[in-house]
Amino acid sequence: MDKAVPHFREELEALLARLLEMGGLAEARVREAVEGLVTRDPALIAKVRDGDEPLNRLHIEIDDRCFRLLALHQPMATDLRAIVAAVKINTDLERVGDLAVNIAQAAGRYATHPPVKKLIDIPQMSDIAQGMLHDALDAFVRRDTRLAQQVLNEDDRLDGLKTQVFRELLTYMLQDPSTVEPALDLILISRHLERIGDHATNIAEDVIFMVSAQDVRHHTAGGA
Amino acid sequence: MDKAVPHFREELEALLARLLEMGGLAEARVREAVEGLVTRDPALIAKVRDGDEPLNRLHIEIDDRCFRLLALHQPMATDLRAIVAAVKINTDLERVGDLAVNIAQAAGRYATHPPVKKLIDIPQMSDIAQGMLHDALDAFVRRDTRLAQQVLNEDDRLDGLKTQVFRELLTYMLQDPSTVEPALDLILISRHLERIGDHATNIAEDVIFMVSAQDVRHHTAGGA
Repeated sequence: MDKAVPHFREELEALLARLLEMGGLAEARVREAVEGLVTRDPALIAKVRDGDEPLNRLHIEIDDRCFRLLALHQPMATDLRAIVAAVKINTDLERVGDLAVNIAQAAGRYATHPPVKKLIDIPQMSDIAQGMLHDALDAFVRRDTRLAQQVLNEDDRLDGLKTQVFRELLTYMLQDPSTVEPALDLILISRHLERIGDHATNIAEDVIFMVSAQDVRHHTAGGA
Repeated sequence: MDKAVPHFREELEALLARLLEMGGLAEARVREAVEGLVTRDPALIAKVRDGDEPLNRLHIEIDDRCFRLLALHQPMATDLRAIVAAVKINTDLERVGDLAVNIAQAAGRYATHPPVKKLIDIPQMSDIAQGMLHDALDAFVRRDTRLAQQVLNEDDRLDGLKTQVFRELLTYMLQDPSTVEPALDLILISRHLERIGDHATNIAEDVIFMVSAQDVRHHTAGGA
């Protein structure tokens, strides 16, 4: 039996590598969805809308890796927290993939109307959300609470832009009813991007919790 | 050391009881948020908007219970899957609490405008979402995949109502610009309710995965 159990560190490294791969894929899908929106490119929109399968497969594979690590190695303390965090992060990344699909769906509807306006804030929201996701995963792998804290701060910028997008589009809708439908889709897209930022925030919070719980335990052990 | 470790079954039962309590609290907050919307009751709206703390405390407590169970008892197979599922469900319920806050915020804004229409579909969506949440948790505790499957089926009804709400409100917005702002808040609320249904769906999927993985392992063991 023991011979069949690979080394724990190797398996944990492989898990982290797969999580980073999934993060990269999720980011790429968000970027392509918003690129499809801006360029009104039906092929790119369809690619994101119908291409969730690789991410879903990775989600199942990573979940399985987490279970195997927990079941076969029964890790303690920091390692246990890291793997449970990986289970949560995996769920967050899968939902980011779903949100990329939602953005692509809205982009597809938006492309059937004349453009409401030149898109500036939404691509910027997309850049911020992708950056947050990237930094949150980096913070997880490096156990870097300072970087995780930066991700939390970025969330305010995203919220500010979402409010700005909302106000501006509301003005269009009130002035010209023909913009109501497409403007609604832009509002929905800005909310999907805000939620992607929320998932990055969740990941950053998991990192801070994971690392600080470790510290707390160290202190308890020292004081006992 | 062993004397300080409580019995695993007792601790697991306590965890499930707390999860059910949290589910009940999350359901109640969704119900109150939509009641506040319908009755335009500022006190009820404020209660939900500012009252997320008990749910957040339960979230931390349950997370901690899951870690203690994993660390102290190193459970295998079915029990391991149940506890990891509890970690995920705990996250879903916390987000349901956040969505109740979002609904209350939108209800507060909505109450500053004249009502757009008599609200029928949104309270119905709320009832369905609450029922889904309740059934999903029931299915988890009883490991009842049939009930979990019913939850998945209910999600289509919720999606149908969301589309209906959207179409109806779009008509109002196109006909009368003074309805644009309040109608937008109703559309957002219907999406928040849809997302609560999505969280119930996630829980139901975790139940099916938990129970079926158990079966798969039994078969593997039998065949080896």
